[in-house]
Amino acid sequence: MIGVLARRMEELKASEIRELLKVTEQEEMISLAGGLPAPETFPVPELAAAVSRLLAEHGPAAMQYSTTEGYQPLRAKIAARMNASMKTTFSADDLLITNGSQQGLDLTGKIFLDEGDEVLCESPTYLGAVNALRAYSPRFVEVATDDDGMIAEDLEAKLVGCRRPKLIYVVPDFQNPTGRSWSLERRQALLEIAARWRVPVIEDAPYREVRFAGEPVPTLAALDRYGIVVHLGTFSKIFAPGMRLGWLATTSGLREKYVLVKQGADLHTSTFTQMAVDTYLESNDIDAAIVRIRRLYRSRRDAMVAALEREMPEGATFTRPEGGLFCWLQLPGDVDAREVLAAALKRGVAAVPGGSFFPNGGHENTMRLNFSNMSEERIAEGIRRLGVVIAEFRAVHEAACEQLCG
Amino acid sequence: MIGVLARRMEELKASEIRELLKVTEQEEMISLAGGLPAPETFPVPELAAAVSRLLAEHGPAAMQYSTTEGYQPLRAKIAARMNASMKTTFSADDLLITNGSQQGLDLTGKIFLDEGDEVLCESPTYLGAVNALRAYSPRFVEVATDDDGMIAEDLEAKLVGCRRPKLIYVVPDFQNPTGRSWSLERRQALLEIAARWRVPVIEDAPYREVRFAGEPVPTLAALDRYGIVVHLGTFSKIFAPGMRLGWLATTSGLREKYVLVKQGADLHTSTFTQMAVDTYLESNDIDAAIVRIRRLYRSRRDAMVAALEREMPEGATFTRPEGGLFCWLQLPGDVDAREVLAAALKRGVAAVPGGSFFPNGGHENTMRLNFSNMSEERIAEGIRRLGVVIAEFRAVHEAACEQLCG
Repeated sequence: MIGVLARRMEELKASEIRELLKVTEQEEMISLAGGLPAPETFPVPELAAAVSRLLAEHGPAAMQYSTTEGYQPLRAKIAARMNASMKTTFSADDLLITNGSQQGLDLTGKIFLDEGDEVLCESPTYLGAVNALRAYSPRFVEVATDDDGMIAEDLEAKLVGCRRPKLIYVVPDFQNPTGRSWSLERRQALLEIAARWRVPVIEDAPYREVRFAGEPVPTLAALDRYGIVVHLGTFSKIFAPGMRLGWLATTSGLREKYVLVKQGADLHTSTFTQMAVDTYLESNDIDAAIVRIRRLYRSRRDAMVAALEREMPEGATFTRPEGGLFCWLQLPGDVDAREVLAAALKRGVAAVPGGSFFPNGGHENTMRLNFSNMSEERIAEGIRRLGVVIAEFRAVHEAACEQLCG
Repeated sequence: MIGVLARRMEELKASEIRELLKVTEQEEMISLAGGLPAPETFPVPELAAAVSRLLAEHGPAAMQYSTTEGYQPLRAKIAARMNASMKTTFSADDLLITNGSQQGLDLTGKIFLDEGDEVLCESPTYLGAVNALRAYSPRFVEVATDDDGMIAEDLEAKLVGCRRPKLIYVVPDFQNPTGRSWSLERRQALLEIAARWRVPVIEDAPYREVRFAGEPVPTLAALDRYGIVVHLGTFSKIFAPGMRLGWLATTSGLREKYVLVKQGADLHTSTFTQMAVDTYLESNDIDAAIVRIRRLYRSRRDAMVAALEREMPEGATFTRPEGGLFCWLQLPGDVDAREVLAAALKRGVAAVPGGSFFPNGGHENTMRLNFSNMSEERIAEGIRRLGVVIAEFRAVHEAACEQLCG
């Protein structure tokens, strides 16, 4: 291979999850590994009708270059939807259309991060964010996190220990990988601390609208009295991820910086996909479609939680999320999830070892389980097989313990 | 505005061209400023038919997440087309699908550039490449360039003066902004020098297939015996730019690095647009469509060159490109193109001052003229008005000279 690579390339590795997805493409595999939305929820005929109308009415414009900011009518519709459900006051000009919310993370790194700058995040946190931001060579500072979100005292303590804290990155609703949501108090505490330290907060909210139990908690964007929040949204979980359409919304004054780096990165997001989804929104009730997605995912979450309660051996604990796509499993004792995975794959079931969601490593006794992309029957069967494997490892582990300790 | 931005943000400014495009959106303006393909060449009904078939046959897959590398059948088709016209031997696995070739430039910067590393480029060079790469804080080293391409002796001399030369970036076919193409000898000399210095060559080839006069010259990718070329291609000029579909092709062993950084940047390019264009290619003759694009652009180039010959005052020189979208105009003496633009806008015609295409500044007496997006009549009228303005500035300039000089 010719050429001398940038220093940042030493840090970048292929994502364990993406590599896993390749193995799990076999039909017979029960994959709880990925994060795929259920394809049966995709509005296929509605998109076909929208594209047909779009190309008949605005064909050349839909195929031409367009502005970096994104298609104005689509931005206006997204702002209106956010304002209605979040009680925010975003205008179209507070928004930038991105290639999924993943691109919002890349652009964030580009705007803020010099080598060695600190990014504070939940522990664990979304692996894709770590991969995006790692390209800008920051230091990740994991803040202790429980079922209610980041622990304010630990955030404050970690900020004291930072040299150049540049960003606080959080997923407050149905987090990937844990499925946990933050309490209102923790959200308010985070904003108060961030404002005091003058550190911008990136609120990644891909699952926000996929709540199937409990009551909505205000988003950080809605609670932001300081102009310090950059809110990332996406059509991936409420329409379809293959469009690669997301957005960022902020009243922080940072939007023009984002536009500037987006322009260098790819000029703009596809005019065609933007106008196709805009046309879809004009003639369809996306809220009704989201109700159907929620209902389906609730059944699958129920199936997974019931199976976990039935099949997991003593000592295993797991989350019971009120939305999103994932449960988080803590294995008994020091059972290693990577070993569990290797054994589980042989029995035709896949899940993601949790260690990779901790940017600084450790926590190898955790697993992320996806419930959005399998039928209830297959979820139950997958968890049953996984339970057998974990019980075996637990037994081996206990026997070894007894030998050592007694 | 909250937060402390990365150092790189000090260097980034809004693109003069993109800002200009906003002014030139007025209907009555004759805009020779942008780089928009002719929308009447976009295959609107063909795309509608392709999407309709795609969604009927593969709807859920077309809307689901897919691999970072890009849709395999599309990569295979692109490789086959390149191999047929370029006499290369690319396989689908040498390709990565990108969001236009612009994203290939951003990913290239991310892979190779640390702050202060040198990028060698033509003088002038494509502004979008400068904007993309500038985010990685390199030093741009402009290599003297004439009608046949980079001057080999100057490239060698500039390499001697570099501390960490990381990339050589070139647009060998119908360059943006000059419309110039490289001779075979210059291409061979470049590769020989780059191989000796072990510096990768980025061949940006968006206009390659839009040749309407003269004979094709082999691409750098085709001449590459060393595995040092990364070739960037795009559907923007042969299908439609609003899809944001491009690709990079390389046998250098670098493709996996590109996949890695693409994954962090946005996971993958839209499955939907990839499969839509793949379906289009299955049932349409894109080569016949490209012949029609070439014919149209040739007429418009002819109209522009004829008008330039007719309307430009003494002392102005310009290129007569054999393909692509642009002519390059050298103004008489020291006439400042930014002043010409200000006066021309008042007469309802826009073009881009050439200074911004020189990463290190200077050369303010140049202009880029686009001929792809206006009728022959409007091109003739635009150049006529521009000629009047330039003649006025030349007269003022000469009068001032006479006063000063005697």
